[in-house]
Amino acid sequence: MADAIRIIGIDPGLRRTGWAVIEALGNSLRFVAAGTVRSDDKSDLATRLCQLHDGLMDVLGTHAPHEAAVEATFVNKDAVATLKLGQARGIAMLVPARAGLRVAEYAPNAVKKAVIGVGHGDKRQIHMMVKVLLPRASFDTDDAADATAIAICHAHHRQTPAARLALEAQA
Amino acid sequence: MADAIRIIGIDPGLRRTGWAVIEALGNSLRFVAAGTVRSDDKSDLATRLCQLHDGLMDVLGTHAPHEAAVEATFVNKDAVATLKLGQARGIAMLVPARAGLRVAEYAPNAVKKAVIGVGHGDKRQIHMMVKVLLPRASFDTDDAADATAIAICHAHHRQTPAARLALEAQA
Repeated sequence: MADAIRIIGIDPGLRRTGWAVIEALGNSLRFVAAGTVRSDDKSDLATRLCQLHDGLMDVLGTHAPHEAAVEATFVNKDAVATLKLGQARGIAMLVPARAGLRVAEYAPNAVKKAVIGVGHGDKRQIHMMVKVLLPRASFDTDDAADATAIAICHAHHRQTPAARLALEAQA
Repeated sequence: MADAIRIIGIDPGLRRTGWAVIEALGNSLRFVAAGTVRSDDKSDLATRLCQLHDGLMDVLGTHAPHEAAVEATFVNKDAVATLKLGQARGIAMLVPARAGLRVAEYAPNAVKKAVIGVGHGDKRQIHMMVKVLLPRASFDTDDAADATAIAICHAHHRQTPAARLALEAQA
């Protein structure tokens, strides 16, 4: 699609960061690619963050998206898990921002609402609807499927800034 | 000091990231510089992470440290604060690691023990001892003083890998 906006959705995690690139032209969506950047859990933390950084740089280089979206996840697990997620999320936001992309953030219920029509629902429902909305989509991991849902959410909301739920607003 | 090892200590935070560069030669320590990288809290999160990234890149460019140390902080505050710290911490570890520096992590009680001799004590005691150990040190913020304590801790422990307390080990 010539005038399509190419969107990368990112679902950050220290062990696995899912990503998906879709194209949006008006109400029409097209799946481009999805995948998972992994870090080696035998490496030290700084090395793992570099692995995520380099993997995401490769994806941006290959697929040249115009805009990025990341889920504003809050884990209700322990502080260690939240800190780890934060570290991966810092990288997931830094890489597209440094490449000059606008990076939008969406709350989990906004992502659910964009994909399944309501603000609640389990992962299975979300992944099923992603396949309905983008029949050509295929995923190596659930993280890549989640990243696709985030990209779809951004395609719906990108022209309504009020609908964007930034982390800052909640802090 | 010609054969001195130049160490950067970093105390990460989204609003203010403190840094300090010291030189270690045997048991002798020398203060080089300290300061604070700030992010603009009116900017969006991705932009703020870029500001921290660019600020730390400038510091590395100016002071060319050989090794880096970051505190393995656990905030016992809410998940939002922990996530924010994690994001800043991800950048604070990525920047030196991508520049080829080894990045060590130290638990807060290891930092206290290295500076004041015991594993507990308040910030005032730590800052006072930092000034005793490095009389020429001067700081624009408490974060820069904390970063100096982290650098001192690394100077003491850098040749005893067993003493390094990596976050991974606790996860």
